[in-house]
Amino acid sequence: MMSVADLGEFGLIAEIRALLPPDPSAIVGVGDDAAVLPVPGARVVASTDLLIEGRHFRRDWSAAKDVGAKAAAQNLADIAAMGAVPTALLFGLAIPGEVAADWVLGVTRGMVSECGRIGAAIAGGDVTSADQVMLAITALGYLNGQPPVTRGGARPGDAIAVSGPVGPAAAGLALLLAGYGRQSDLAPELTGLIDAQRRPQPRYQAGPQAARHGATAMIDTSDGLLQDLGHIAADSGVGLELRLASLPGTDVLRPAADLLQADWRQWALAGGEDHAFAATFSPGVTIPADWTIIGNVCDGADILVDGAVWPGNTGWDHFRKPGSNRSS
Amino acid sequence: MMSVADLGEFGLIAEIRALLPPDPSAIVGVGDDAAVLPVPGARVVASTDLLIEGRHFRRDWSAAKDVGAKAAAQNLADIAAMGAVPTALLFGLAIPGEVAADWVLGVTRGMVSECGRIGAAIAGGDVTSADQVMLAITALGYLNGQPPVTRGGARPGDAIAVSGPVGPAAAGLALLLAGYGRQSDLAPELTGLIDAQRRPQPRYQAGPQAARHGATAMIDTSDGLLQDLGHIAADSGVGLELRLASLPGTDVLRPAADLLQADWRQWALAGGEDHAFAATFSPGVTIPADWTIIGNVCDGADILVDGAVWPGNTGWDHFRKPGSNRSS
Repeated sequence: MMSVADLGEFGLIAEIRALLPPDPSAIVGVGDDAAVLPVPGARVVASTDLLIEGRHFRRDWSAAKDVGAKAAAQNLADIAAMGAVPTALLFGLAIPGEVAADWVLGVTRGMVSECGRIGAAIAGGDVTSADQVMLAITALGYLNGQPPVTRGGARPGDAIAVSGPVGPAAAGLALLLAGYGRQSDLAPELTGLIDAQRRPQPRYQAGPQAARHGATAMIDTSDGLLQDLGHIAADSGVGLELRLASLPGTDVLRPAADLLQADWRQWALAGGEDHAFAATFSPGVTIPADWTIIGNVCDGADILVDGAVWPGNTGWDHFRKPGSNRSS
Repeated sequence: MMSVADLGEFGLIAEIRALLPPDPSAIVGVGDDAAVLPVPGARVVASTDLLIEGRHFRRDWSAAKDVGAKAAAQNLADIAAMGAVPTALLFGLAIPGEVAADWVLGVTRGMVSECGRIGAAIAGGDVTSADQVMLAITALGYLNGQPPVTRGGARPGDAIAVSGPVGPAAAGLALLLAGYGRQSDLAPELTGLIDAQRRPQPRYQAGPQAARHGATAMIDTSDGLLQDLGHIAADSGVGLELRLASLPGTDVLRPAADLLQADWRQWALAGGEDHAFAATFSPGVTIPADWTIIGNVCDGADILVDGAVWPGNTGWDHFRKPGSNRSS
């Protein structure tokens, strides 16, 4: 088995580069001091995220390809959540020298594959040695004539809608924590939840679509629906009322909750890593087909679920102690 | 002492944000899913780099402010090395929960300060816990009407020039490794070398300046002059001839070399982290005042120093074993 250290920095970079499809839109692509990319509309949208081994992924739980796809997905989703079209990723990799070079190439393949879902390219990166595997991803995109959709534009009376499922990634995490990831005869609906944890599939086009329909605020659900909607509430200076029964795709959570004697509502309301999109729309606007109305914006500052403040945990804090996050 | 874990993710982010000066040019600044920035000329220049504790910096060798300034500098320099104007940084921080929050705020202050040297702003970021401190920086910039200056445009007959010193950062590293960082009565010229290691001060404006003077190829010296010029040679399909006596600022290396019984030429030719700029200019072009001619481009593929291939180490590989890098 060839390790990263066996290949060396420049050997590894050459192998990574060989996996990147050519990007005909790049003015300067991978391999110079910096990439140069066209930005239609002359407004660039940029976001950066870190994924740390043992916290955001585990090499024994996820295939390398899934780790790469998930890293790409969470960043591309941030761009789409501004109503923008994601176009490029920059990919920083910190890795212990003894890790197999094939693992790195698998991560790269996963990123390339996820970028391909939305027509984005890998435009640059950096590789260095470290004690722990860390991925640092920056995504870039552009606004197609529309203004950006921030977290701050929701107004009382707006509808709240989501595009994409809420809770499956957290349910999948709970199944993995309980050891079900090693079970080969798992029921397909439970396998689907584990897949959602390993490899979320954000509906990127829902972001620009919501922007075209005049969404007043938008976010992607990376840290839990309540926590992420809380950012919209805080930045917009509004309250939010959600209806639990309106949340889409919660049927698939129930068998897992029964199996684990857990509360599916906790996954749906506070589970992270789904990378669904949540947005608010002015009253009277036709909500796009891929979106489901789950509540409405109101005066005040509270976030109510079926009329009451949710008593459980509401989301993820990266410095909380293990076990205190996402537990029911 | 307040630790990062005591503050929590969102408390820490709030403290970091409070240190960032407002960026009047940002369309959407820090605090949304992504930043939205204007890109004059509709071509964005983007580069990403990782800094790992114990490899790129040591908390016992460098003040937090210097770590932040250096992280910013090496990324802003990559943008300038394309002939572009750096405008923004995105700043990912992976950090153990027990690290003092003040250290993180010091790093932030250093970044803000270094960005201020060139009028750039911190546009976004991410914070997460990890076993080891890692900074992941992405720099963005724009091209001011000129085409980008790549590594691939050097032609035989061009002059090779540098802007900024070569070798002081490596000499400073050697002094730190030998224990001189703790010595308070160090001669000022040696202190200056340690300062260059802790906090390089790239001449960012030299990049766009070289572009305006028609530089045919450019790079910043992050991994060692010979290695970085080697990228120009390889990408341009040319050979390079350097004159050791023409290298600027090598006088300051000699007292340190005498003290450590080291070879100053090794620092000048193969020492990394100076973030000087190296460029090639067509014959007959007036070289800008901040630049020093150090050789010329020739046919072939070799890089010659005073007519011979340099027999020593030529630069940095992040997966080589400790001690095999930058030693004389």
